Amino acid sequence: MVRIAVDAMGGDHAPLAVVRGAEAAAGEKAVEVVLVGDENVIAPLLKSRSGIEIVHAPVAVEMKESPSVALRKKKNSSVNKAFGLLKSGSVEAVVSAGNSGAAMAFAIVTLGRIPGVERPAILTIHPNGLGTRSVLLDAGGTVDCRPSHLVQFAIMGNVFAKYALGVEAPKVGILSNGEEVTKGNELTRETHTLLKDADFNYMGYIEGTDLYNGMADVVITDGFVGNVALKVSEGVAEAIIGILKKQKVTGGLRTKIGYRLLSGVFKALSEMVDYSEYGGAPLVGVDGVCIICHGKSNERAIKNAILQAKGFVGKNISGRIKDAIQDYVSLTKGGKEH
Amino acid sequence: MVRIAVDAMGGDHAPLAVVRGAEAAAGEKAVEVVLVGDENVIAPLLKSRSGIEIVHAPVAVEMKESPSVALRKKKNSSVNKAFGLLKSGSVEAVVSAGNSGAAMAFAIVTLGRIPGVERPAILTIHPNGLGTRSVLLDAGGTVDCRPSHLVQFAIMGNVFAKYALGVEAPKVGILSNGEEVTKGNELTRETHTLLKDADFNYMGYIEGTDLYNGMADVVITDGFVGNVALKVSEGVAEAIIGILKKQKVTGGLRTKIGYRLLSGVFKALSEMVDYSEYGGAPLVGVDGVCIICHGKSNERAIKNAILQAKGFVGKNISGRIKDAIQDYVSLTKGGKEH
Repeated sequence: MVRIAVDAMGGDHAPLAVVRGAEAAAGEKAVEVVLVGDENVIAPLLKSRSGIEIVHAPVAVEMKESPSVALRKKKNSSVNKAFGLLKSGSVEAVVSAGNSGAAMAFAIVTLGRIPGVERPAILTIHPNGLGTRSVLLDAGGTVDCRPSHLVQFAIMGNVFAKYALGVEAPKVGILSNGEEVTKGNELTRETHTLLKDADFNYMGYIEGTDLYNGMADVVITDGFVGNVALKVSEGVAEAIIGILKKQKVTGGLRTKIGYRLLSGVFKALSEMVDYSEYGGAPLVGVDGVCIICHGKSNERAIKNAILQAKGFVGKNISGRIKDAIQDYVSLTKGGKEH
Repeated sequence: MVRIAVDAMGGDHAPLAVVRGAEAAAGEKAVEVVLVGDENVIAPLLKSRSGIEIVHAPVAVEMKESPSVALRKKKNSSVNKAFGLLKSGSVEAVVSAGNSGAAMAFAIVTLGRIPGVERPAILTIHPNGLGTRSVLLDAGGTVDCRPSHLVQFAIMGNVFAKYALGVEAPKVGILSNGEEVTKGNELTRETHTLLKDADFNYMGYIEGTDLYNGMADVVITDGFVGNVALKVSEGVAEAIIGILKKQKVTGGLRTKIGYRLLSGVFKALSEMVDYSEYGGAPLVGVDGVCIICHGKSNERAIKNAILQAKGFVGKNISGRIKDAIQDYVSLTKGGKEH
């Protein structure tokens, strides 16, 4: 049995979508959900309390609230109470669709960082043209990165792809403005120098065009570029789907029949760009399993994120990341002594 | 009559696609094309020499050649000869689909920068959801930018959108990881401070999701992020079109009929993501009109780039950019004296 705390007050559709998602997940084998939020609001929404517990925490962090303000004034918020449960060992993972900056700030303060990790990263999982999945980190956790941060992202991403996604020797690439080593900016060039002799499958630079073709299993970038890359992807997909939808409405009979016949194809397309399929984004580098979901998360996304968290606990992803970082720290310290 | 030099040796499909594109453009009113390249190769390819002149320059810069090496060793290359013609006043614009880094390096050395511009930028033009077009700069010219560079990009982009695209008061935004001013990285935050009191329509930050929805007419970013954003867009469009194509081939009769009925819709989609529709990307900040085309440019893209160059000459875009930068320089100097 894996016990998972879920922030019932976080997300655009909280608490209803979160409660429904939690119920759906608690219906699965070996999952117990602790809903952290306002009991007076949550309890009446629950259809069944089987596999579900409530921990009362009526204070919510608003979606647009500044993380530093939340950190000072909302120590008793639902999201931070969830991290408290994880820290004390009462649960094994936390899921939140709330303010991601605040969630990250509280996770750092309450759970602490893994020794050797300077900055945690938000890791996203996306489909690629090979029919498998690739990961990108950092998706927006740390905007101004130093090369050592990216090296730690690479180590964590490699472990994640290997043990969470089952990729044997993940290809790890730095997102850059060209494949050649003469390309890149100051940050990527210095990171490249540090990663050249990595004991995993570091492949050098990849370009933006390669993000979705499976060229790399793990894409390393700073949180600013990662955020822009993912949001641009969302924007392009929305623009294309917008054109298709517009034509569907304005088109003649011929077009309408065409859409009817291709409904399966369009469904496949929507699923590819539907974040709710993939649950949420693990926050890696903090000491514990923590999944950050899209603010727009619906019931399905919350359910998938909870089951995802259960999987990461079962596969000991957090422990494996800790070991890999520890190995790297000893290795580089050893190297410096010579 | 506008005379335009075209680098006949540059591009994946050079010289044939370049020659055919030049012929197509020279067929239009008031355009004269000077093909700069190996006369022995070009002359036999020409179907007609009406409106076309050849300047012999047999040395080509390779697509993968390092710009700094090209700069040292290939001063007599076709692309640099084209810039020489522009500098001497023999032509009014240059078009090249060759190595863009080398083209930029030669443009800086041979044409020089506009006084007050520290770094030139590659400006790309893309369709947006409003049915108009937006521009992004820098698309890859300068990867490590300082805030002053981005301010100059904003000034140049504003002038370009106003006079080349006819947008009355272009909305100018900085590409960031969130709309709130608390977001951004060191570079965007400092640029934001410098742009707050700009005398054009500066709107603050925009997100990656807004790149194609027309929220901004001018998107400002450094060349690293700009390159990643555009190449990610290409990657997403390719992935989606890949899914559609695969289903078309593997689908049953129902699917095949559906595609047949929707051929018009898919054509509209392809056109939206087809760079050749939009010709090339102007290099702004150098002293003269210079259009850099996609390496993959076909005949149509070259033709459109030549006609685009003609338009920019007619609208005096380069002169207007010079004036705007001059105004800014006087203004900030005046400000500092107080």
